[in-house]
Amino acid sequence: MEKQKAVVMLSGGMDSATCLAVAIDSGYSAAVLHLNYGQRTQAKELDSFNKLCDFYGIKGKLVVDVGYFTQIGGSSLTDNKIEVENANLDSDMIPNSYVPFRNGNILAIAASWAEVIGATAIYSGATQADSSGYPDCRQAFFNAFEKAINLGTMPETKIKIFSPLINLTKAGIVALGGRLRVPFELTWSCYQNNDFPCGICDSCALRQRGFNQAGIIDPLLNIGKR
Amino acid sequence: MEKQKAVVMLSGGMDSATCLAVAIDSGYSAAVLHLNYGQRTQAKELDSFNKLCDFYGIKGKLVVDVGYFTQIGGSSLTDNKIEVENANLDSDMIPNSYVPFRNGNILAIAASWAEVIGATAIYSGATQADSSGYPDCRQAFFNAFEKAINLGTMPETKIKIFSPLINLTKAGIVALGGRLRVPFELTWSCYQNNDFPCGICDSCALRQRGFNQAGIIDPLLNIGKR
Repeated sequence: MEKQKAVVMLSGGMDSATCLAVAIDSGYSAAVLHLNYGQRTQAKELDSFNKLCDFYGIKGKLVVDVGYFTQIGGSSLTDNKIEVENANLDSDMIPNSYVPFRNGNILAIAASWAEVIGATAIYSGATQADSSGYPDCRQAFFNAFEKAINLGTMPETKIKIFSPLINLTKAGIVALGGRLRVPFELTWSCYQNNDFPCGICDSCALRQRGFNQAGIIDPLLNIGKR
Repeated sequence: MEKQKAVVMLSGGMDSATCLAVAIDSGYSAAVLHLNYGQRTQAKELDSFNKLCDFYGIKGKLVVDVGYFTQIGGSSLTDNKIEVENANLDSDMIPNSYVPFRNGNILAIAASWAEVIGATAIYSGATQADSSGYPDCRQAFFNAFEKAINLGTMPETKIKIFSPLINLTKAGIVALGGRLRVPFELTWSCYQNNDFPCGICDSCALRQRGFNQAGIIDPLLNIGKR
Protein backbone atom coordinates (compact mmCIF):
# COMPACT_ATOMS: atom_id res chain seq x y z
CA MET A 1 0.00 0.00 0.00
CA GLU A 2 1.29 3.40 -0.90
CA LYS A 3 2.19 5.64 2.01
CA GLN A 4 0.10 8.70 2.76
CA LYS A 5 1.86 11.96 2.03
CA ALA A 6 2.57 14.64 4.59
CA VAL A 7 3.87 18.15 3.97
CA VAL A 8 6.51 18.82 6.62
CA MET A 9 7.73 22.33 7.25
CA LEU A 10 11.49 22.17 7.57
CA SER A 11 13.33 25.34 8.45
CA GLY A 12 16.59 23.60 9.15
CA GLY A 13 16.39 24.11 12.90
CA MET A 14 16.45 21.35 15.50
CA ASP A 15 12.70 21.48 16.12
CA SER A 16 11.65 21.05 12.51
CA ALA A 17 14.30 18.35 12.00
CA THR A 18 12.84 16.44 14.93
CA CYS A 19 9.35 17.01 13.56
CA LEU A 20 10.42 15.53 10.22
CA ALA A 21 11.78 12.49 12.01
CA VAL A 22 8.43 12.08 13.80
CA ALA A 23 6.47 12.30 10.52
CA ILE A 24 8.65 9.66 8.89
CA ASP A 25 8.52 7.51 12.03
CA SER A 26 4.71 7.76 11.89
CA GLY A 27 4.72 6.15 8.45
CA TYR A 28 4.25 9.17 6.22
CA SER A 29 6.02 9.86 2.97
CA ALA A 30 7.40 13.32 3.69
CA ALA A 31 7.31 16.20 1.22
CA VAL A 32 9.24 19.04 2.77
CA LEU A 33 8.65 22.76 2.52
CA HIS A 34 11.24 25.44 3.19
CA LEU A 35 10.80 29.18 3.16
CA ASN A 36 13.30 31.85 2.29
CA TYR A 37 11.70 34.88 3.86
CA GLY A 38 14.57 37.30 3.87
CA GLN A 39 15.66 36.29 7.34
CA ARG A 40 19.23 37.13 8.36
CA THR A 41 20.26 33.50 8.38
CA GLN A 42 18.58 32.48 5.12
CA ALA A 43 21.64 30.84 3.55
CA LYS A 44 22.52 28.94 6.72
CA GLU A 45 19.00 27.61 7.12
CA LEU A 46 18.77 26.55 3.49
CA ASP A 47 22.07 24.73 3.82
CA SER A 48 20.80 22.84 6.87
CA PHE A 49 17.53 22.10 5.04
CA ASN A 50 19.37 20.56 2.09
CA LYS A 51 21.65 18.49 4.31
CA LEU A 52 18.67 17.17 6.25
CA CYS A 53 16.85 16.31 2.99
CA ASP A 54 19.90 14.37 1.82
CA PHE A 55 20.16 12.60 5.17
CA TYR A 56 16.52 11.46 5.02
CA GLY A 57 16.44 10.81 1.27
CA ILE A 58 13.56 13.24 0.71
CA LYS A 59 12.25 13.35 -2.85
CA GLY A 60 9.50 15.97 -2.65
CA LYS A 61 11.10 19.33 -1.89
CA LEU A 62 9.63 22.78 -2.27
CA VAL A 63 11.68 25.88 -1.52
CA VAL A 64 9.74 29.08 -1.90
CA ASP A 65 10.75 32.70 -1.66
CA VAL A 66 8.47 34.79 0.47
CA GLY A 67 10.51 37.95 0.37
CA TYR A 68 7.40 39.91 1.22
CA PHE A 69 8.19 39.43 4.91
CA THR A 70 11.07 41.83 4.36
CA GLN A 71 8.70 44.27 2.65
CA ILE A 72 6.25 43.97 5.53
CA GLY A 73 8.93 44.23 8.23
CA GLY A 74 8.08 44.42 11.90
CA SER A 75 10.54 41.80 13.09
CA SER A 76 14.21 41.76 13.99
CA LEU A 77 14.51 38.58 11.93
CA THR A 78 13.57 40.24 8.67
CA ASP A 79 14.20 43.94 9.28
CA ASN A 80 17.86 44.85 9.60
CA LYS A 81 16.91 48.14 11.23
CA ILE A 82 15.65 46.21 14.27
CA GLU A 83 18.34 44.71 16.50
CA VAL A 84 18.03 41.08 17.58
CA GLU A 85 17.31 41.19 21.31
CA ASN A 86 19.35 39.13 23.69
CA ALA A 87 17.35 36.43 25.37
CA ASN A 88 15.34 36.91 28.51
CA LEU A 89 13.75 33.52 29.02
CA ASP A 90 11.98 34.63 32.19
CA SER A 91 10.13 37.47 30.51
CA ASP A 92 6.51 37.26 29.49
CA MET A 93 7.12 39.71 26.66
CA ILE A 94 6.97 38.42 23.10
CA PRO A 95 10.47 39.09 21.72
CA ASN A 96 11.00 41.27 18.66
CA SER A 97 12.13 38.26 16.64
CA TYR A 98 8.40 37.54 16.26
CA VAL A 99 7.55 37.69 12.54
CA PRO A 100 3.93 38.82 12.34
CA PHE A 101 1.68 35.84 11.61
CA ARG A 102 4.54 33.89 10.05
CA ASN A 103 3.05 30.51 10.83
CA GLY A 104 -0.22 31.58 9.29
CA ASN A 105 1.61 32.29 6.06
CA ILE A 106 3.64 29.08 6.18
CA LEU A 107 0.57 26.98 6.87
CA ALA A 108 -1.30 28.62 4.01
CA ILE A 109 1.50 27.74 1.58
CA ALA A 110 1.68 24.23 3.00
CA ALA A 111 -2.07 23.84 2.56
CA SER A 112 -1.93 24.92 -1.09
CA TRP A 113 0.87 22.47 -1.81
CA ALA A 114 -0.77 19.69 0.19
CA GLU A 115 -3.97 20.08 -1.78
CA VAL A 116 -2.14 19.87 -5.11
CA ILE A 117 -0.04 16.81 -4.25
CA GLY A 118 -2.81 15.05 -2.36
CA ALA A 119 -1.16 15.13 1.05
CA THR A 120 -3.44 14.42 3.99
CA ALA A 121 -1.28 15.92 6.71
CA ILE A 122 0.81 18.97 7.48
CA TYR A 123 3.49 18.72 10.13
CA SER A 124 4.73 21.75 12.03
CA GLY A 125 7.54 21.70 14.57
CA ALA A 126 6.10 24.60 16.52
CA THR A 127 6.15 24.49 20.30
CA GLN A 128 4.17 26.46 22.81
CA ALA A 129 5.49 24.95 26.01
CA ASP A 130 9.02 26.25 25.98
CA SER A 131 8.92 28.65 23.05
CA SER A 132 9.36 32.37 22.96
CA GLY A 133 5.63 32.92 23.37
CA TYR A 134 4.92 33.54 19.69
CA PRO A 135 1.13 33.64 19.38
CA ASP A 136 1.13 31.59 16.16
CA CYS A 137 2.80 28.65 17.90
CA ARG A 138 -0.13 27.70 20.10
CA GLN A 139 -2.33 24.64 19.76
CA ALA A 140 -5.45 26.79 19.69
CA PHE A 141 -4.07 28.59 16.64
CA PHE A 142 -3.31 25.33 14.85
CA ASN A 143 -6.79 24.02 15.57
CA ALA A 144 -8.35 27.18 14.17
CA PHE A 145 -6.12 27.09 11.10
CA GLU A 146 -6.88 23.44 10.40
CA LYS A 147 -10.55 24.30 10.41
CA ALA A 148 -9.92 27.21 8.03
CA ILE A 149 -7.96 24.95 5.67
CA ASN A 150 -10.68 22.37 5.48
CA LEU A 151 -13.34 25.02 4.90
CA GLY A 152 -11.21 26.77 2.28
CA THR A 153 -10.18 23.81 0.11
CA MET A 154 -11.99 21.39 -2.19
CA PRO A 155 -14.68 19.19 -0.58
CA GLU A 156 -12.58 16.06 -1.12
CA THR A 157 -9.49 17.61 0.46
CA LYS A 158 -9.03 16.58 4.09
CA ILE A 159 -5.90 17.85 5.78
CA LYS A 160 -4.88 17.36 9.37
CA ILE A 161 -2.28 19.57 11.03
CA PHE A 162 0.08 17.76 13.36
CA SER A 163 2.29 19.68 15.76
CA PRO A 164 3.93 16.80 17.64
CA LEU A 165 6.31 19.04 19.58
CA ILE A 166 3.70 21.53 20.72
CA ASN A 167 3.74 20.49 24.37
CA LEU A 168 7.39 19.50 24.60
CA THR A 169 10.03 21.57 26.30
CA LYS A 170 13.28 22.11 24.43
CA ALA A 171 14.78 19.39 26.59
CA GLY A 172 11.93 17.10 25.61
CA ILE A 173 12.62 17.81 21.94
CA VAL A 174 16.31 17.05 22.40
CA ALA A 175 15.41 13.77 24.11
CA LEU A 176 12.86 12.84 21.42
CA GLY A 177 15.26 13.76 18.64
CA GLY A 178 17.94 11.73 20.31
CA ARG A 179 15.71 8.64 20.39
CA LEU A 180 14.86 9.15 16.70
CA ARG A 181 18.55 9.71 15.89
CA VAL A 182 18.03 13.17 14.47
CA PRO A 183 21.34 14.51 13.09
CA PHE A 184 21.39 17.63 15.26
CA GLU A 185 24.83 18.48 13.92
CA LEU A 186 23.17 19.35 10.61
CA THR A 187 20.72 21.82 12.12
CA TRP A 188 21.01 25.60 12.60
CA SER A 189 19.18 27.55 15.31
CA CYS A 190 20.96 30.87 15.82
CA TYR A 191 19.20 34.09 14.79
CA GLN A 192 22.51 35.81 13.96
CA ASN A 193 24.29 35.28 10.68
CA ASN A 194 27.73 34.28 11.92
CA ASP A 195 29.92 31.24 11.26
CA PHE A 196 29.12 29.86 14.70
CA PRO A 197 26.02 30.21 16.86
CA CYS A 198 26.20 33.43 18.91
CA GLY A 199 25.07 31.67 22.06
CA ILE A 200 23.19 34.68 23.38
CA CYS A 201 20.19 35.24 21.10
CA ASP A 202 16.79 33.94 22.13
CA SER A 203 17.07 30.87 19.93
CA CYS A 204 20.59 29.95 21.04
CA ALA A 205 19.66 30.38 24.67
CA LEU A 206 16.67 28.07 24.29
CA ARG A 207 18.74 25.45 22.47
CA GLN A 208 21.52 25.60 25.03
CA ARG A 209 19.14 25.23 27.95
CA GLY A 210 17.38 22.35 26.20
CA PHE A 211 20.53 20.34 25.63
CA ASN A 212 21.73 21.10 29.15
CA GLN A 213 18.48 19.96 30.71
CA ALA A 214 18.36 16.82 28.56
CA GLY A 215 21.88 15.99 29.62
CA ILE A 216 23.02 15.70 26.02
CA ILE A 217 25.92 17.56 24.49
CA ASP A 218 24.97 19.62 21.43
CA PRO A 219 27.00 18.10 18.60
CA LEU A 220 26.82 21.37 16.69
CA LEU A 221 29.48 22.99 18.80
CA ASN A 222 29.44 21.58 22.24
CA ILE A 223 27.62 24.72 23.16
CA GLY A 224 26.67 23.46 26.60
CA LYS A 225 30.30 23.53 27.69
CA ARG A 226 31.42 26.94 26.48
CA MET B 1 -9.77 61.79 14.97
CA GLU B 2 -7.50 59.67 12.87
CA LYS B 3 -9.21 57.14 10.67
CA GLN B 4 -8.85 53.45 11.39
CA LYS B 5 -6.77 51.60 8.86
CA ALA B 6 -8.02 48.71 6.74
CA VAL B 7 -5.97 46.44 4.52
CA VAL B 8 -7.94 46.02 1.30
CA MET B 9 -7.06 43.27 -1.14
CA LEU B 10 -7.14 44.79 -4.60
CA SER B 11 -6.57 42.50 -7.54
CA GLY B 12 -7.66 45.04 -10.11
CA GLY B 13 -10.92 43.27 -10.90
CA MET B 14 -14.37 44.78 -10.59
CA ASP B 15 -15.16 43.00 -7.33
CA SER B 16 -12.09 44.16 -5.43
CA ALA B 17 -12.49 47.68 -6.85
CA THR B 18 -16.03 47.76 -5.51
CA CYS B 19 -14.80 46.37 -2.19
CA LEU B 20 -12.24 49.17 -1.96
CA ALA B 21 -14.99 51.70 -2.57
CA VAL B 22 -17.02 50.14 0.24
CA ALA B 23 -14.08 50.27 2.67
CA ILE B 24 -13.47 53.94 1.91
CA ASP B 25 -17.20 54.69 2.09
CA SER B 26 -17.24 53.02 5.52
CA GLY B 27 -14.71 55.54 6.79
CA TYR B 28 -11.53 53.53 6.69
CA SER B 29 -8.16 54.72 5.54
CA ALA B 30 -7.35 52.05 2.96
CA ALA B 31 -3.96 50.37 2.62
CA VAL B 32 -4.13 48.17 -0.45
CA LEU B 33 -2.48 44.84 -1.10
CA HIS B 34 -1.86 43.36 -4.53
CA LEU B 35 -0.39 39.98 -5.36
CA ASN B 36 1.62 38.96 -8.37
CA TYR B 37 1.24 35.21 -8.26
CA GLY B 38 2.39 34.27 -11.71
CA GLN B 39 -1.10 34.39 -13.13
CA ARG B 40 -1.45 34.75 -16.90
CA THR B 41 -2.81 38.25 -16.60
CA GLN B 42 -0.34 39.56 -14.02
CA ALA B 43 0.68 42.68 -15.94
CA LYS B 44 -2.91 43.59 -16.80
CA GLU B 45 -4.06 43.22 -13.21
CA LEU B 46 -1.15 45.25 -11.85
CA ASP B 47 -1.92 47.99 -14.35
CA SER B 48 -5.55 48.09 -13.20
CA PHE B 49 -4.40 48.05 -9.56
CA ASN B 50 -2.18 51.09 -10.09
CA LYS B 51 -4.84 53.01 -11.97
CA LEU B 52 -7.35 52.32 -9.21
CA CYS B 53 -4.84 53.44 -6.55
CA ASP B 54 -4.31 56.68 -8.44
CA PHE B 55 -8.04 57.18 -8.81
CA TYR B 56 -8.62 56.79 -5.07
CA GLY B 57 -5.42 58.56 -3.97
CA ILE B 58 -4.20 55.54 -2.00
CA LYS B 59 -0.98 56.13 -0.05
CA GLY B 60 -0.33 52.72 1.53
CA LYS B 61 0.39 50.22 -1.25
CA LEU B 62 1.99 46.81 -0.97
CA VAL B 63 2.66 44.71 -4.06
CA VAL B 64 4.13 41.31 -3.26
CA ASP B 65 5.39 38.53 -5.46
CA VAL B 66 4.08 35.14 -4.53
CA GLY B 67 5.55 33.25 -7.44
CA TYR B 68 5.32 30.07 -5.41
CA PHE B 69 1.81 29.56 -6.79
CA THR B 70 3.45 28.81 -10.11
CA GLN B 71 5.80 26.36 -8.38
CA ILE B 72 2.86 24.69 -6.67
CA GLY B 73 0.70 24.63 -9.80
CA GLY B 74 -2.66 22.90 -9.89
CA SER B 75 -4.61 25.72 -11.53
CA SER B 76 -5.19 26.91 -15.07
CA LEU B 77 -4.52 30.44 -13.84
CA THR B 78 -0.94 29.72 -12.81
CA ASP B 79 -0.01 26.62 -14.78
CA ASN B 80 0.32 27.19 -18.51
CA LYS B 81 0.03 23.45 -19.14
CA ILE B 82 -3.58 23.59 -17.96
CA GLU B 83 -6.02 25.21 -20.42
CA VAL B 84 -8.45 27.82 -19.13
CA GLU B 85 -11.87 26.19 -19.33
CA ASN B 86 -14.73 27.97 -21.02
CA ALA B 87 -17.47 28.93 -18.65
CA ASN B 88 -20.32 26.69 -17.65
CA LEU B 89 -22.23 28.79 -15.17
CA ASP B 90 -24.86 26.11 -14.62
CA SER B 91 -22.36 23.49 -13.51
CA ASP B 92 -21.74 22.58 -9.89
CA MET B 93 -18.13 21.65 -10.64
CA ILE B 94 -15.39 23.89 -9.31
CA PRO B 95 -13.58 25.14 -12.44
CA ASN B 96 -9.88 24.50 -12.99
CA SER B 97 -9.14 28.20 -12.56
CA TYR B 98 -9.34 27.47 -8.82
CA VAL B 99 -5.93 28.25 -7.27
CA PRO B 100 -5.59 25.94 -4.29
CA PHE B 101 -6.25 27.86 -1.07
CA ARG B 102 -5.36 31.16 -2.70
CA ASN B 103 -7.51 33.24 -0.39
CA GLY B 104 -5.91 31.55 2.61
CA ASN B 105 -2.53 32.74 1.40
CA ILE B 106 -3.75 36.23 0.57
CA LEU B 107 -5.44 36.62 3.94
CA ALA B 108 -2.30 35.43 5.72
CA ILE B 109 -0.21 38.09 3.99
CA ALA B 110 -2.88 40.69 4.68
CA ALA B 111 -2.89 39.70 8.35
CA SER B 112 0.89 40.05 8.64
CA TRP B 113 0.81 43.48 7.07
CA ALA B 114 -2.25 44.55 9.05
CA GLU B 115 -0.52 43.62 12.29
CA VAL B 116 2.59 45.64 11.40
CA ILE B 117 0.75 48.80 10.31
CA GLY B 118 -1.88 48.58 13.04
CA ALA B 119 -4.85 48.02 10.76
CA THR B 120 -7.99 46.77 12.45
CA ALA B 121 -9.74 45.41 9.38
CA ILE B 122 -9.10 43.36 6.28
CA TYR B 123 -11.44 43.76 3.31
CA SER B 124 -11.90 41.01 0.76
CA GLY B 125 -14.02 41.30 -2.36
CA ALA B 126 -14.79 37.59 -2.42
CA THR B 127 -18.29 36.46 -3.25
CA GLN B 128 -19.97 33.15 -2.64
CA ALA B 129 -23.41 33.88 -4.04
CA ASP B 130 -22.64 34.16 -7.71
CA SER B 131 -19.02 33.07 -7.82
CA SER B 132 -17.44 30.07 -9.43
CA GLY B 133 -17.87 28.00 -6.28
CA TYR B 134 -14.31 28.41 -5.02
CA PRO B 135 -14.27 26.94 -1.50
CA ASP B 136 -12.11 29.77 -0.13
CA CYS B 137 -14.73 32.36 -1.06
CA ARG B 138 -17.34 31.30 1.46
CA GLN B 139 -18.40 33.18 4.58
CA ALA B 140 -17.71 30.13 6.75
CA PHE B 141 -14.11 30.14 5.54
CA PHE B 142 -13.66 33.84 6.32
CA ASN B 143 -15.12 33.36 9.80
CA ALA B 144 -12.71 30.50 10.48
CA PHE B 145 -9.76 32.46 9.13
CA GLU B 146 -10.61 35.54 11.19
CA LYS B 147 -10.55 33.35 14.27
CA ALA B 148 -7.18 31.91 13.23
CA ILE B 149 -5.76 35.41 12.70
CA ASN B 150 -6.79 36.62 16.11
CA LEU B 151 -5.42 33.50 17.79
CA GLY B 152 -2.18 33.71 15.81
CA THR B 153 -1.27 37.36 16.32
CA MET B 154 -0.25 39.49 19.30
CA PRO B 155 -2.77 39.79 22.14
CA GLU B 156 -3.35 43.49 21.40
CA THR B 157 -3.95 42.84 17.69
CA LYS B 158 -7.65 42.67 16.84
CA ILE B 159 -8.48 42.26 13.18
CA LYS B 160 -11.89 41.88 11.62
CA ILE B 161 -12.34 40.45 8.13
CA PHE B 162 -15.02 42.14 6.07
CA SER B 163 -16.31 40.58 2.89
CA PRO B 164 -19.03 43.05 1.95
CA LEU B 165 -19.76 41.42 -1.41
CA ILE B 166 -20.04 37.88 -0.11
CA ASN B 167 -23.79 37.57 -0.60
CA LEU B 168 -24.11 39.78 -3.64
CA THR B 169 -24.66 38.47 -7.14
CA LYS B 170 -22.50 39.91 -9.88
CA ALA B 171 -25.44 42.10 -10.81
CA GLY B 172 -25.64 43.27 -7.22
CA ILE B 173 -21.94 44.17 -7.29
CA VAL B 174 -22.39 46.12 -10.52
CA ALA B 175 -25.31 47.98 -8.95
CA LEU B 176 -23.39 48.69 -5.72
CA GLY B 177 -20.30 49.76 -7.63
CA GLY B 178 -22.45 51.99 -9.78
CA ARG B 179 -23.90 53.72 -6.71
CA LEU B 180 -20.38 54.22 -5.29
CA ARG B 181 -19.14 55.48 -8.68
CA VAL B 182 -16.51 52.77 -9.06
CA PRO B 183 -14.49 53.39 -12.24
CA PHE B 184 -15.24 50.01 -13.81
CA GLU B 185 -13.43 51.09 -16.96
CA LEU B 186 -10.16 50.78 -15.01
CA THR B 187 -10.77 47.19 -13.91
CA TRP B 188 -9.71 43.92 -15.55
CA SER B 189 -11.55 40.63 -15.14
CA CYS B 190 -10.60 38.30 -18.00
CA TYR B 191 -8.52 35.19 -17.25
CA GLN B 192 -6.86 35.32 -20.68
CA ASN B 193 -3.92 37.56 -21.41
CA ASN B 194 -5.21 39.36 -24.50
CA ASP B 195 -5.63 43.04 -25.32
CA PHE B 196 -9.37 42.77 -24.88
CA PRO B 197 -11.46 40.52 -22.63
CA CYS B 198 -12.06 37.17 -24.32
CA GLY B 199 -15.72 37.17 -23.39
CA ILE B 200 -15.90 33.39 -22.97
CA CYS B 201 -13.82 32.49 -19.91
CA ASP B 202 -15.51 31.92 -16.59
CA SER B 203 -14.66 35.39 -15.32
CA CYS B 204 -15.77 37.20 -18.49
CA ALA B 205 -19.02 35.26 -18.58
CA LEU B 206 -19.79 36.19 -14.97
CA ARG B 207 -19.00 39.85 -15.59
CA GLN B 208 -21.06 39.97 -18.74
CA ARG B 209 -24.07 38.37 -17.06
CA GLY B 210 -23.73 40.74 -14.10
CA PHE B 211 -23.77 43.90 -16.19
CA ASN B 212 -26.60 42.53 -18.30
CA GLN B 213 -28.72 41.72 -15.27
CA ALA B 214 -27.98 45.08 -13.64
CA GLY B 215 -29.01 46.81 -16.82
CA ILE B 216 -25.75 48.71 -16.99
CA ILE B 217 -23.39 48.80 -19.94
CA ASP B 218 -19.86 47.67 -19.10
CA PRO B 219 -17.70 50.72 -19.81
CA LEU B 220 -14.66 48.51 -20.33
CA LEU B 221 -15.78 47.51 -23.80
CA ASN B 222 -19.48 47.57 -24.04
CA ILE B 223 -19.29 43.83 -23.55
CA GLY B 224 -23.03 43.51 -22.88
CA LYS B 225 -23.83 44.43 -26.47
CA ARG B 226 -21.45 42.26 -28.44
